[in-house]
Amino acid sequence: MPQDSHTAIAVDAMGGDHAPAVVVEGALDAVRETTGRFSVVLVGKKEAIDRELQKHPDTATLSRHLDIVHASEVIDMQDTPTAALKTKRDSSIGVGLQLHRTGTVQAFVSAGNTGAVMSASTLILGRIPGVGRPTIGTLIPTAKGRALLVDAGANVDCRPNHLLEFAVMGSIYASAMLGKANPSVGLLNIGEEESKGNEAAQEAHRLLKASRLNFVGNVEGRDILKGTADVVVCDGFVGNILLKFGESIPAFFKAKFTAYAAGSPVRKLVGLVARGGLRSIMKELDYQEHGGVPLLGVNGVSIIGHGGSTPKAIKNMIFRAEEMVTRDVLLGIKNALAQYS
Amino acid sequence: MPQDSHTAIAVDAMGGDHAPAVVVEGALDAVRETTGRFSVVLVGKKEAIDRELQKHPDTATLSRHLDIVHASEVIDMQDTPTAALKTKRDSSIGVGLQLHRTGTVQAFVSAGNTGAVMSASTLILGRIPGVGRPTIGTLIPTAKGRALLVDAGANVDCRPNHLLEFAVMGSIYASAMLGKANPSVGLLNIGEEESKGNEAAQEAHRLLKASRLNFVGNVEGRDILKGTADVVVCDGFVGNILLKFGESIPAFFKAKFTAYAAGSPVRKLVGLVARGGLRSIMKELDYQEHGGVPLLGVNGVSIIGHGGSTPKAIKNMIFRAEEMVTRDVLLGIKNALAQYS
Repeated sequence: MPQDSHTAIAVDAMGGDHAPAVVVEGALDAVRETTGRFSVVLVGKKEAIDRELQKHPDTATLSRHLDIVHASEVIDMQDTPTAALKTKRDSSIGVGLQLHRTGTVQAFVSAGNTGAVMSASTLILGRIPGVGRPTIGTLIPTAKGRALLVDAGANVDCRPNHLLEFAVMGSIYASAMLGKANPSVGLLNIGEEESKGNEAAQEAHRLLKASRLNFVGNVEGRDILKGTADVVVCDGFVGNILLKFGESIPAFFKAKFTAYAAGSPVRKLVGLVARGGLRSIMKELDYQEHGGVPLLGVNGVSIIGHGGSTPKAIKNMIFRAEEMVTRDVLLGIKNALAQYS
Repeated sequence: MPQDSHTAIAVDAMGGDHAPAVVVEGALDAVRETTGRFSVVLVGKKEAIDRELQKHPDTATLSRHLDIVHASEVIDMQDTPTAALKTKRDSSIGVGLQLHRTGTVQAFVSAGNTGAVMSASTLILGRIPGVGRPTIGTLIPTAKGRALLVDAGANVDCRPNHLLEFAVMGSIYASAMLGKANPSVGLLNIGEEESKGNEAAQEAHRLLKASRLNFVGNVEGRDILKGTADVVVCDGFVGNILLKFGESIPAFFKAKFTAYAAGSPVRKLVGLVARGGLRSIMKELDYQEHGGVPLLGVNGVSIIGHGGSTPKAIKNMIFRAEEMVTRDVLLGIKNALAQYS
């Protein structure tokens, strides 16, 4: 193991649609940009990883901050999570998380099978006391900066106390990542009044109101991008749909703008001139810029990325993992949840 | 009552934040643009309506296509729907819907208290046989044209058979309004596989698959703007949140673009050049352009608009009501539902 840095992060070299090439490239980028700040442990088929490393001329220079841990098996995107974890005992996901559990690394990052990473993280790292359901929170752009949407797809059927847990964990994560001491928490609902929404939402409102969180009440769909709340709480069914909808907006605008520009020579010129500005705005909506999402509630730092992650996304996932470690989000969540048990 | 046209549409003159001024203006615009094609019956406080009519110099010319029916009471935006319907027996909403029930008019349009219009429409017009829950469907822009999101907020807790009803009614409405013979129907869910989603979604998938609809399976949040399905079915909790989120996108982009343009003189110039193009794209996302939404499943044509409707939105709501009448959407829905009972 590398000895020269405080934090070591295990990266699932086999996770993602273009692994290991893209993962190795992203990991090298992360190490190159931050030489010595942390080290990366690439987990997966050693030969394949070595082959990728050799394609990069400065691998030797960076090797002090790099290590490889062999794992002979790969859980594919098509694998059923629970079954794959049983049959593929030596998977890169399992081995990487074991490195974390035993303290060899302080975080685990994967762009592989999301369900498998979630299940394995919960099984291997365990849950923090007081957590019924680990959750995924996603930072989204708003007019005021960024907000955390939680749950972003991990739990489709939620009870009100799960929503409270998401709010508590999301509040700590948002506080650490957005640098806000006491982030505002809103319950995503269909109206401002307490009596609005389905039964789960009404009961969750009551629980949140009684909590020590900075609860600002219900927020509606239109409030999310306004930045009305720093933490927007919802179940994973709504969160997943909303998040994927949001991710599709840039492509929609691009298509509309292209169609507009094709309308006349003047419009074409307008399109050419405006392209840069639009691109810069769309960039904010692009998840690749921000890296993966954390699985909150497990006893460790586990970051999950899109299968289609680019090297940049992998790099940003690693940066996010490091941030979570250095800002001790895990301890913060443990302390916050202890107040509710 | 006006005798010179085939269709008469009752308009709630007292409904909306700026009634009756905005409503009267929108109604006059509708009549002016379509002289003789249909007539409008303004329902509400006669004196107040007359006063507004007198502000428009061509009222006399248009009067052949206009009528006023007095209603002494107004249900406010703050009123509790069911209570208000009991205490305010002579409300513009109640009187207008009675005109529809008795056949004096063929449609009713209101930008007033949404809950009250929904309850009163269901009570006074009754439900179509086979309808458990009347629903609201909203047309939204997609890369391919437009799609119908149903339920858009009328029913927060839905059973699987309600989702099937929404799909059947939405399919007929989309067919008539989008001009597609056999519109594709998608179930909004968190993944493509049948096994995805909460229990209600899984059972609804089974019902839709067994139906005679052109069911294309689950669609995800990212598929909505792509136009993967002509009719996107979901419960009203998800639909309301998604719709309000979508409506907030233009303001978000405007804020981001303004901030971008403020960055440098060159960017300012880019902003000025691109403004027209952006505005034209944003226009598509603006509900004011498209008018109100229909309450599907009641035994009549009832169109509900935003409280903040402009004269243009009121005009478009009236046009939509006329379209629904001339394309006989009501009969289409009755026939389609008869196949399932």
